Amino acid sequence: MAQLDQPQLERMHRYWNAANYLTVGQIYLQANPLLREPLSPEHIKPRLLGHWGTSPGLSFIYVHLNRLIKERDANMIYLAGPGHGGPAIVANVYLEGTYSEVYPHITQDHDGMHRLFRQFSTPGGIPSHVSVPTPGSIHEGGELGYVLSHAFGAAFDNPDLVVAAVIGDGEAETAPLEGAWKSLSYLNPIRDGAVLPILHLNGYKISGPTVLGRASDDHIRNLISGYGYDVHFLEGDDPMQMHRAFAELLDTCYEKIRACQEYARSHGVQSVPPWPAIILRTPKGWTGPKEVDGKRIEGTYRAHQVPIDGVKNNPEHLHMLEEWMRSYQPGEIFDENGRLIPELAELAPQGTRRMGANPHANGGLLLQDLHLPLFTDYALGVKKPATEHHESTRQLGMWMRDIFSANKEQQNFRLFCPDETNSNRLGNVFEVENRCFVEPIISDDDNLSPDGRVMEVLSEHLCQGWLEGYLLTGRHGIFATYEAFAMVSASMTIQHSKWMEEGIKLPWRADISSLNILLTSTCWRNDHNGFSHQGPGLIDTVLSKKGTVARIYLPPDANCLLSVADHCLRSRNYVNLIVIDKQPQLQWLNMQDAIDHCTRGLSTWQWASNDQDVEPDVVMACAGDIPTLETIAAAWWLRQHIPELKVRVVNVVDLMTLYPPYLHPHGMEEAKFVEHFTEDKPVVFAFHGYPRAIHELVHGRANEERFHVRGFNEEGTTTTPFDMVVLNGMSRYHLCIEVLRRARRVHGLIPALIAECNDLLAKHHTYVRAHLEDMPEIRDWAWTD
Amino acid sequence: MAQLDQPQLERMHRYWNAANYLTVGQIYLQANPLLREPLSPEHIKPRLLGHWGTSPGLSFIYVHLNRLIKERDANMIYLAGPGHGGPAIVANVYLEGTYSEVYPHITQDHDGMHRLFRQFSTPGGIPSHVSVPTPGSIHEGGELGYVLSHAFGAAFDNPDLVVAAVIGDGEAETAPLEGAWKSLSYLNPIRDGAVLPILHLNGYKISGPTVLGRASDDHIRNLISGYGYDVHFLEGDDPMQMHRAFAELLDTCYEKIRACQEYARSHGVQSVPPWPAIILRTPKGWTGPKEVDGKRIEGTYRAHQVPIDGVKNNPEHLHMLEEWMRSYQPGEIFDENGRLIPELAELAPQGTRRMGANPHANGGLLLQDLHLPLFTDYALGVKKPATEHHESTRQLGMWMRDIFSANKEQQNFRLFCPDETNSNRLGNVFEVENRCFVEPIISDDDNLSPDGRVMEVLSEHLCQGWLEGYLLTGRHGIFATYEAFAMVSASMTIQHSKWMEEGIKLPWRADISSLNILLTSTCWRNDHNGFSHQGPGLIDTVLSKKGTVARIYLPPDANCLLSVADHCLRSRNYVNLIVIDKQPQLQWLNMQDAIDHCTRGLSTWQWASNDQDVEPDVVMACAGDIPTLETIAAAWWLRQHIPELKVRVVNVVDLMTLYPPYLHPHGMEEAKFVEHFTEDKPVVFAFHGYPRAIHELVHGRANEERFHVRGFNEEGTTTTPFDMVVLNGMSRYHLCIEVLRRARRVHGLIPALIAECNDLLAKHHTYVRAHLEDMPEIRDWAWTD
Repeated sequence: MAQLDQPQLERMHRYWNAANYLTVGQIYLQANPLLREPLSPEHIKPRLLGHWGTSPGLSFIYVHLNRLIKERDANMIYLAGPGHGGPAIVANVYLEGTYSEVYPHITQDHDGMHRLFRQFSTPGGIPSHVSVPTPGSIHEGGELGYVLSHAFGAAFDNPDLVVAAVIGDGEAETAPLEGAWKSLSYLNPIRDGAVLPILHLNGYKISGPTVLGRASDDHIRNLISGYGYDVHFLEGDDPMQMHRAFAELLDTCYEKIRACQEYARSHGVQSVPPWPAIILRTPKGWTGPKEVDGKRIEGTYRAHQVPIDGVKNNPEHLHMLEEWMRSYQPGEIFDENGRLIPELAELAPQGTRRMGANPHANGGLLLQDLHLPLFTDYALGVKKPATEHHESTRQLGMWMRDIFSANKEQQNFRLFCPDETNSNRLGNVFEVENRCFVEPIISDDDNLSPDGRVMEVLSEHLCQGWLEGYLLTGRHGIFATYEAFAMVSASMTIQHSKWMEEGIKLPWRADISSLNILLTSTCWRNDHNGFSHQGPGLIDTVLSKKGTVARIYLPPDANCLLSVADHCLRSRNYVNLIVIDKQPQLQWLNMQDAIDHCTRGLSTWQWASNDQDVEPDVVMACAGDIPTLETIAAAWWLRQHIPELKVRVVNVVDLMTLYPPYLHPHGMEEAKFVEHFTEDKPVVFAFHGYPRAIHELVHGRANEERFHVRGFNEEGTTTTPFDMVVLNGMSRYHLCIEVLRRARRVHGLIPALIAECNDLLAKHHTYVRAHLEDMPEIRDWAWTD
Repeated sequence: MAQLDQPQLERMHRYWNAANYLTVGQIYLQANPLLREPLSPEHIKPRLLGHWGTSPGLSFIYVHLNRLIKERDANMIYLAGPGHGGPAIVANVYLEGTYSEVYPHITQDHDGMHRLFRQFSTPGGIPSHVSVPTPGSIHEGGELGYVLSHAFGAAFDNPDLVVAAVIGDGEAETAPLEGAWKSLSYLNPIRDGAVLPILHLNGYKISGPTVLGRASDDHIRNLISGYGYDVHFLEGDDPMQMHRAFAELLDTCYEKIRACQEYARSHGVQSVPPWPAIILRTPKGWTGPKEVDGKRIEGTYRAHQVPIDGVKNNPEHLHMLEEWMRSYQPGEIFDENGRLIPELAELAPQGTRRMGANPHANGGLLLQDLHLPLFTDYALGVKKPATEHHESTRQLGMWMRDIFSANKEQQNFRLFCPDETNSNRLGNVFEVENRCFVEPIISDDDNLSPDGRVMEVLSEHLCQGWLEGYLLTGRHGIFATYEAFAMVSASMTIQHSKWMEEGIKLPWRADISSLNILLTSTCWRNDHNGFSHQGPGLIDTVLSKKGTVARIYLPPDANCLLSVADHCLRSRNYVNLIVIDKQPQLQWLNMQDAIDHCTRGLSTWQWASNDQDVEPDVVMACAGDIPTLETIAAAWWLRQHIPELKVRVVNVVDLMTLYPPYLHPHGMEEAKFVEHFTEDKPVVFAFHGYPRAIHELVHGRANEERFHVRGFNEEGTTTTPFDMVVLNGMSRYHLCIEVLRRARRVHGLIPALIAECNDLLAKHHTYVRAHLEDMPEIRDWAWTD
């Protein structure tokens, strides 16, 4: 361990003072950044925002990691869980020089500091959290809970990287954070990097104490060591003592990390090594005001946000603020130009070793394209539409198997799934790849290895959090999950979308691979699992995100799925939602037709239509595999029974094509749209999700009230596949009735055919109750000319 | 401890055999329930569904809890986290007699058993999970993660109740479950009951091992004791040894629970007592087939679902199934009529001590109405609309304060909030009520006590899970949270809605209090917190639920909020979503007008309209506080500048009134709807959430394409309140422009006024960037005649 001399510790302390000074300045000042004149009300921002409480601790850690990096040439990034401490991280990134490189107008001088202060939590400025505009960040600190899962995702397949993950004691109370400690059981010390969790306890959240903040060291040691960590405590408030102790502790932990890795790298992986974790207890609002208006501040919940309020109008408070800021001795840490003095500036690492400039935190810089096997090689040879049943996702699984093989060298592709890879018919990947698990393996285990890149943990939060961390550091992956339970991590999907929406506005953030979410086991085919498993809600959530980042695909069969998946894995900066069921299903298109169809986004399916030479009476549209099946079957039935009725079938695979072009880049031009949907003919639309999504999408199109949508209406239970579409009024017979009713052409047969449909529905009802399964003519239906 | 004699243990073993027999029967048989003839293919269901793996363990626990209850007259309910083990719980509820009381056609005889088997996971039958139709259940086992939070919610304020919460090792991997262990820090041993967690480890989830299943006892002991539990292990597979050991362990744990309570009840609460928790390790699929087709089944992941497949067509498998079922000796546990023999039947508790019949698990039976202070006493005296600013939620906080006082005796009301009660301006509750915390309390703590009923934990999952458990056991509460982060627990809202949708179909399930979710700190006023805090998505999620259970209210001011909240707290079986911001806002209605308005659900606001004697040119509609402000300000501006233009203002407080009546019980009749919105005039609608929700709601109304909706368009950043509405195109000037453009009456002033609006928007832009705050004329705007 490097012996730290007192002068070095003192320099570090002054560097920390500089960071704290800049933090307070960001919260309070709009002028007079270096306190060259006495503080007066006009120097104070009109609205005081920001979180002081966690900030000095975040800076303390940053300063010490800088030392570690510099001494060891360590490759580290910093994830700030208590992300409200934005000004602290910004201060440090500014001090190390990164900030001014990324934002040249925020210079390292008086004027730059002035702009730095002014922009913080200000209209047109930067948010109060660590966020997308913060160099060095891959983690937004707004919605708490994901810092550990992001950290582990970043460490996977980055053997040299050490991710410092700071967890605030507020965040430590969230479920996703608690569920992420066990990521250790999935971290391979040979091929993966390390995560150094720093649980930074200052006792309080906004106004109440936290469970871990109030817990004894013994309890915390038990808890965290229960996950397999080697737990190290440090508590104190005397800065110089804490500097010495923390520096030594960081050296110890870094050496332990390297020892864990070196042992495994020379002896192989037996089980989870004793990775270190740090519990750091410091006062909330450390070094800030001790008392204001007779109330204790430092060390209490009152230090959470702005510790001295009303500064503009309260001279005493203004004076306290000035004293507080001057306690950091700005005149001695910044030179006459307002630049950090060289003696301190040299404490920061250089170049890309600076945590604000480490390319892993701008993962697109490191992104390597996936080697994608030709997806057409996995095509089903569909000779004729609607005659063969196949599990579509199985073809995807074969392709993914070969993606794993093709990228074995690059080590930059993983599949994340809550223990359903086989159930989702993606099991072919296990021919070449294993499930990852770093705990002891026994003989009954199936395709399990510490080297696996199929990440199966029964936690949607963890699957998605890992994948997000993996993507943000420049790799690729897919999250495959049950449709209904995709809502478990819906808020993560929202926050990641928001991250992307912000990220694409920043030219310095390099493009990253899209977040690909594959939903199988959909509502329509969770007939056996019942109502709790039936919910297509994630479509609505993704639909609310902006067109610049959100994509929704509903491939109706295997070949379309392959084409869509290839497109998604090549895409950048999107959230791609792909929905298709895993059960055997009728196949519609050969590969070339599928490619053409997916490229267009929606097509008229001539073979299923009978309006070849005339305007159709009704357009039948469909999006999603089961809606497509019911629509095609309905069109077929109508053709058999009333060939005079001209029906056009339109299939939608890329949902966003329905938007007008000004709302989404995939939006179809009105003229094209009318080519398919006509100007004014009734459209009976069968949709995979909640019907309103279609009403939203076609809002503004010609005669939008002619769109009659059937979809998931929140009707479900334990039943048969066909009964599910019956319950929701989307069965082929319901669609036929709707078409017959909407057809403006009067035809004598119509009442009789409607009656016949109703008879068939009644027959279904009787049959399904008696036989516990779908009628054979439904189950085995296929297209016959 | 009661010494258990061998004959009693043997009787318990045979009772367990009976439960296992019924479990296997439900999975496999559609006929020949008592195996009175050799098993043949036609006795086998056409589709084999269900989860055997966890079931024998669930039954094992049930049988032993029965003994405990009977011996101690214990008041217990059973929450089955591994809820896929539905057939096991159904079997036990059937054996104890509850099932036949609730469902008289499922008799305790041959024919009843036949129906019991046939209905399981069958069209028109019951789901494969523990679910709403299962007597004794308050917890659906579909989406895993909530069993502990539900259990603690049930135990709160039920001092006599012991909630056995069985956690499967799959569920134990989920984030919400891991985040719920710490509930112990909020359980008061004096006034609350107890939760006995039984972590039932059988090693595997669907196909992979689980982290805790593979963890050593030492690690698990550390982990669970780190949360404060006194951890007890039991592992084994020899049934008789396990019976003896588990009986003793349950006695021990029950006595420890009572000791914790008695100590606290005589000495007061110091800190969290050493509540027991059980780690039970038994083989997956215990007592099932050891090996099938040369592959090990019992004790492996292969026992997860249906352990012997293809039974209908494979004579060898059929034979194995018959041997397996006969191993439980059905002929000796059921009498000639198919009824459990009296010697075994007497092992079950009697009456409401049976876990299937305990009224706490059908909480509506115990529900007592809240004493609600007259909400009108908390009204703001609004003399004139739009002239005074108040924090609306502060009035609610005062009313809630007095709700706490009025129900102090009943002890049946709690407020759940992630540490934001003060921030949400509900802080008046602290005049009479404290935050709950059972850890040591120090002098800087604020309104903190083990006796508190304000439940603040920084976990939306835990807040909502506790509240759900509290409601399902017959109490009342509110979950108040930040709007954007309500999506964190959106899937819980979905699952609870589904529970209610099923529950109201079952006449035996008594009505329970509604799940009331109050969203404050909304997207429009998270201008200072930035984009990650701006998301009104929960409205869309609740909108997708059925009208029978879902309600959404957007009160525009304090008096409306009080009226709505009173209605919601009196309501039953709903999910009520209330959205209103916490910042000072203009007040519109006096109390009587507010009551009338909320009773109607939507009203034309005459005072803000100028169409008194004529048809309006344009209708301006609004829903939500900020949209109302912008709409009223826009109508005022138009009235100043172009009084000839006739504008009607309609405010919507109950969003569901917009639905047609056949889609929602609150839906407004078309004639009434037209009275407000006219038949064909353009409607410029300012909406709190994503605009599409309105398009969905008005779909099917006359000329729906005339609805032009402005709302949250996913535009946000750190800025000012007014800039938020500008960014999303919903500002008063945007609304004016929209009105002026849509007005069909041509008027010479229109182009000039549109230009003036654009000038004002440009002025705003310049001002806000320069002054970091809203222009004074925006900030201080009020209605002037």
